[in-house]
Amino acid sequence: MNRTELITLINRKKSFLCIGLDTDISKMPAHLKDLEDPIFEFNKAIIDSTIYLAVAYKPNLAFYECYGVKGWQSLTRTINYINNTYPGQAFTIADAKRGDIGNTSQQYARAMFDKASSGMEFDAVTVAPYMGEDSVKPFLSYPSKWIIVLALTSNKGAEDFQFFTSQDTRLFEQVLARSKQWGSDENMMYVVGATKAEMLAGIRKIVPDHFLLVPGVGAQGGSLQEVAKHGLTKDCGLLVNSSRNIIYASNGSDFAEKAREEAGRMQKEMEALLK
Amino acid sequence: MNRTELITLINRKKSFLCIGLDTDISKMPAHLKDLEDPIFEFNKAIIDSTIYLAVAYKPNLAFYECYGVKGWQSLTRTINYINNTYPGQAFTIADAKRGDIGNTSQQYARAMFDKASSGMEFDAVTVAPYMGEDSVKPFLSYPSKWIIVLALTSNKGAEDFQFFTSQDTRLFEQVLARSKQWGSDENMMYVVGATKAEMLAGIRKIVPDHFLLVPGVGAQGGSLQEVAKHGLTKDCGLLVNSSRNIIYASNGSDFAEKAREEAGRMQKEMEALLK
Repeated sequence: MNRTELITLINRKKSFLCIGLDTDISKMPAHLKDLEDPIFEFNKAIIDSTIYLAVAYKPNLAFYECYGVKGWQSLTRTINYINNTYPGQAFTIADAKRGDIGNTSQQYARAMFDKASSGMEFDAVTVAPYMGEDSVKPFLSYPSKWIIVLALTSNKGAEDFQFFTSQDTRLFEQVLARSKQWGSDENMMYVVGATKAEMLAGIRKIVPDHFLLVPGVGAQGGSLQEVAKHGLTKDCGLLVNSSRNIIYASNGSDFAEKAREEAGRMQKEMEALLK
Repeated sequence: MNRTELITLINRKKSFLCIGLDTDISKMPAHLKDLEDPIFEFNKAIIDSTIYLAVAYKPNLAFYECYGVKGWQSLTRTINYINNTYPGQAFTIADAKRGDIGNTSQQYARAMFDKASSGMEFDAVTVAPYMGEDSVKPFLSYPSKWIIVLALTSNKGAEDFQFFTSQDTRLFEQVLARSKQWGSDENMMYVVGATKAEMLAGIRKIVPDHFLLVPGVGAQGGSLQEVAKHGLTKDCGLLVNSSRNIIYASNGSDFAEKAREEAGRMQKEMEALLK
């Protein structure tokens, strides 16, 4: 999905909501656990009930890998379900935080973008910047595909290295300033945590037009109003992620309905902010 | 495998060789490609022919993920083959460069260390430090398991951020100094590229006793002599990785034999260095 298509989708749905599919068997309704593929069935129900409210879905790969081969089957079924059932109706993000030397990152890019090889095709993948340019560039050779580079994350550990400062420039600012030269706002986005929303104004000075993927609203304590205030651009420029608040809104048989209600609440708030 | 067992293994095999199982179907002998699981068959042959020469095996997960579910099956079969056929005879490393917020890294830890959950059990996993303490700590709660933190990598992109300098401290030095407080030399190692062997002396001042996993000898241009000169400790303290030079020593039907010859050449060199 290219930038124009993403912006059109946002305007059509009046939403910049991304739903994180961090699907944990221990937190899902009891009646699903006996099915052959509970993770896929859970995801399918969440997707079906929120597809007109969310513009993006973001499975975090850790929640699938922890079940090994079976987990990768659930992941593959999930992404293929979105692509086949709702083509062009959702932006899909593999939250994988990958990154390795060039010829290795090339293999990761195939895993996420090349369906003929891996059986899966996402629109975007999150990448970790520590290993530098050649670790992220191989992902950029796929047309209409995106990398989302970790800049300022929403967790406590973000303070350990991301604020390491050289002559008034913090590491996350250096990551933004340098990495934006490797691609463009047509194929790169950045992760910026909502828990640090007040820093979005400074970040927008470095990357005025790039889309930002913002986790941390809700369970982690970030505020949607604050994020929008400092982060919105004329093209929206934001994908705000919510995981637990939506997908675990209920752990009863009404989980999909409650997820829709919670997603709807956020979409309404976003619609007002987009005006 | 704990530290004492690893050191005993090194002394018994007179080797600190790690073989990187970066198995690429396009580079393997033609006669294997028609088998049901060529990647596993290739790995099995390499392992069988080098088990008395190498102390560690390191599959890089990218080379498996690029084949999706099928690739994860090959990976699972490979690690289980080592653990079942040669128990206690090799240290196994999932070269995955993972890292995410705490509750997510916990799932990655299950993927790599908890066989009951994922069907696989490695001794160690490589992790990326960008997200800080809570992104790596969950891996440290497994007894006799290890994390191997990226410090100074062997690729060109290492220069982009790892040398970012604050008051005479470079980022990779900050990563070493801070992260070593999160665990001990009983459960943490560091990745230091052989292409920067001259920097090992300085690194040894920060982490005098930690094991270092050193990629980049061979195909990437690093020298084993230089690495040993600056990096060896009284307990060895090194795992030197070679991938392409060994596993693709030949692409004919003699590939396993040629891999053994190349591994043997390195083991002999290591035996002399250990004296």
